[in-house]
Amino acid sequence: VKPTLELIATGNELLNGSVLNRHAQWLGSALGGIGWSLARESSIPDDESAILDAIRNAFTRVEVVILTGGLGPTSDDLSRDAAAKWAGRGIEMHQPSRQRVIEIYASRNKPLNNLVENHALVVEGAAVLDNREGLAPGEYLQQGNRHLFLLPGPPREFHAVMNDHVLPRLRQFGIGDAGRHHTFQILGLGESDVAARLDAQGLGRLGLDIAYCANPSQLFIRLHERAGHAMDYDRAVSIVRAALSDDLFSEDERPPALTILGLLNAHHMTLATAESCTGGLLGSMITAIPGSSATFLGGVIAYHNKIKVAAIDVADELILKHGAVSDEVARAMAGGVRARFGADVGVAITGVAGPGGGTKDKPVGLVHVAVSDRSRLLTQALRFGGDRAMIREASCMCALDLVRRLLRPL
Amino acid sequence: VKPTLELIATGNELLNGSVLNRHAQWLGSALGGIGWSLARESSIPDDESAILDAIRNAFTRVEVVILTGGLGPTSDDLSRDAAAKWAGRGIEMHQPSRQRVIEIYASRNKPLNNLVENHALVVEGAAVLDNREGLAPGEYLQQGNRHLFLLPGPPREFHAVMNDHVLPRLRQFGIGDAGRHHTFQILGLGESDVAARLDAQGLGRLGLDIAYCANPSQLFIRLHERAGHAMDYDRAVSIVRAALSDDLFSEDERPPALTILGLLNAHHMTLATAESCTGGLLGSMITAIPGSSATFLGGVIAYHNKIKVAAIDVADELILKHGAVSDEVARAMAGGVRARFGADVGVAITGVAGPGGGTKDKPVGLVHVAVSDRSRLLTQALRFGGDRAMIREASCMCALDLVRRLLRPL
Repeated sequence: VKPTLELIATGNELLNGSVLNRHAQWLGSALGGIGWSLARESSIPDDESAILDAIRNAFTRVEVVILTGGLGPTSDDLSRDAAAKWAGRGIEMHQPSRQRVIEIYASRNKPLNNLVENHALVVEGAAVLDNREGLAPGEYLQQGNRHLFLLPGPPREFHAVMNDHVLPRLRQFGIGDAGRHHTFQILGLGESDVAARLDAQGLGRLGLDIAYCANPSQLFIRLHERAGHAMDYDRAVSIVRAALSDDLFSEDERPPALTILGLLNAHHMTLATAESCTGGLLGSMITAIPGSSATFLGGVIAYHNKIKVAAIDVADELILKHGAVSDEVARAMAGGVRARFGADVGVAITGVAGPGGGTKDKPVGLVHVAVSDRSRLLTQALRFGGDRAMIREASCMCALDLVRRLLRPL
Repeated sequence: VKPTLELIATGNELLNGSVLNRHAQWLGSALGGIGWSLARESSIPDDESAILDAIRNAFTRVEVVILTGGLGPTSDDLSRDAAAKWAGRGIEMHQPSRQRVIEIYASRNKPLNNLVENHALVVEGAAVLDNREGLAPGEYLQQGNRHLFLLPGPPREFHAVMNDHVLPRLRQFGIGDAGRHHTFQILGLGESDVAARLDAQGLGRLGLDIAYCANPSQLFIRLHERAGHAMDYDRAVSIVRAALSDDLFSEDERPPALTILGLLNAHHMTLATAESCTGGLLGSMITAIPGSSATFLGGVIAYHNKIKVAAIDVADELILKHGAVSDEVARAMAGGVRARFGADVGVAITGVAGPGGGTKDKPVGLVHVAVSDRSRLLTQALRFGGDRAMIREASCMCALDLVRRLLRPL
């Protein structure tokens, strides 16, 4: 088996705007970890013939296909039927799964409704892959050298069955030769500018694969070694490291908040946040990291100006004189929350996230960030493009980068 | 032209886990607004022959295809080449676009790097669709009754070119007969339980399309009228409304925070938040809504217990006696932030988001939410499954639902 596969995601909700399909991203990342790669992803409607057609089509290109969604108990759950047709088999009740459904309902004191047992239907002769996170089990079907995995659609269940059953089986099929790869993460710089800076150092003339990938104010550069070009790969890593120098946030794909928490931890320092335009998004990014409570004390969402004054001691006059979106107020917010919360480091964000509220002097996208500890203060004025969500996300990235720059000189 | 189309998204980053592909969701929603539908989405790598193959394959099923990504200036941008091959044409420099690139760089005082003009390359004879948000324009190619749109990959640029050019052209091609549709939004209840409750009222026996779509603690029920079944559709809307009654959060797809801000606004009430385990996520959801500053004063991320005491006046003894994750502390947090911030309504969340920190009495997933105004207090103890992110998101949904329940009886 060649270590590549395709994903078919089923569900009208993936195509009519109701649901964001996150499976391809999760699967691509998980497969990368075992040297496999995702060759294609297709999202198709709840339509048995479209599903069957997609399965057959995918098997013209690869030997392993993962089909997700449509294993539920209702009439729009058709993946199991399409898979049965593909394999030329029928559908049967899987008694252990049925028993489990009944037990779960009993343990929750919920009455069994008349649909719920359908979760336990499977394709005849399928290897049943139990699903510790949900009611519908996964299934594995083999026809000659073609391998079809049926997985539940809800992300938590998809991940559980993938981790428990599918990834281990893929490892048994064979591990790909992934070559070396290295990631650089940069916050606050543009893709084209970074690319030009690196090309000026001759990066483009080396034999290796380079991928740039940009989120709002977050850029990843991924270098992949090509077979027979080990020296080029080594040189490229050195070139990027030297060219980016102080602008390099990290050399991994970890969430920036995780890196910052690690840095703070290494310095035995605690953190507090003061957010205006980001309204809790920075705190939310930090507390998304398990264990953040060891380092992060908390923060103030100082959205209304009176909260900036009352909760984190920003002087009224400062707001009157410079406006709430100003370097001066950002400094006062960072210092204020640090003092109030007894934290070692305070970080603050104030800006115009739009779409309304911009002026000629202070347009939408203008953001001030500030970071302070006992003795030092760093501030930065930023000017972002994009919509409200992008401006808010980019602001948090730049604030986290500023924390890194503060902690760097230890 | 039949009002249905396919989307092909290109980019290795969509398949290796680097980037979350949001185009299908956005496009599906935008198409729904003009009576069109997205029939399929495929994500494929930066590989010219794979792109060409995907274009040809899609045109066996539909007459309109949108190809996104791969219009940038670097060597892995291959969509334009694949499209040129499909159309049997060459590539040319589009001088107005080139001039614009040069002017944008001049206005930003950025030196032109040697790649950047490549943004202005287009397929010979393509209708150029200008891109107000970026450097690479969109393109429109017609071959007989086949229509291919090339769009830039970055979401902001994709949306701009779609809104400015592609959606208007699709409208010209024809508007679909969408039939009536109605959405119900429910927070905090499970899909299967709601479905069983509605089926018990005979919903399943009516002639209409029903789709259930669940996020953590957020469920949408979408009813679609079938041609010739107007009465069934009307009855279905009444059945759902009556069966869900007080549990119905809204009858639209709007973000719950937007609904809550509207309710507060109608009552001339302001809001403040106190968050422990969600760490700012609730504030972030609220402030994601433009104009939230009229109603939302701010909040405290009371992550460490000492912040619960110092910043929102939770009594030390309460935490000692009942623990930070308790009904009592949730009440005190809601009342505390309300008083401190001078808000009309205070809402609080405290829980065990995991993966660590759970005990037998207070397992991972246990969350207490509380809402209070001048005279009333509502609390709820919740027990969620899922991972840290799901528990946090579900907690915020239930907190917003509790605000709705507080405001309802006015």
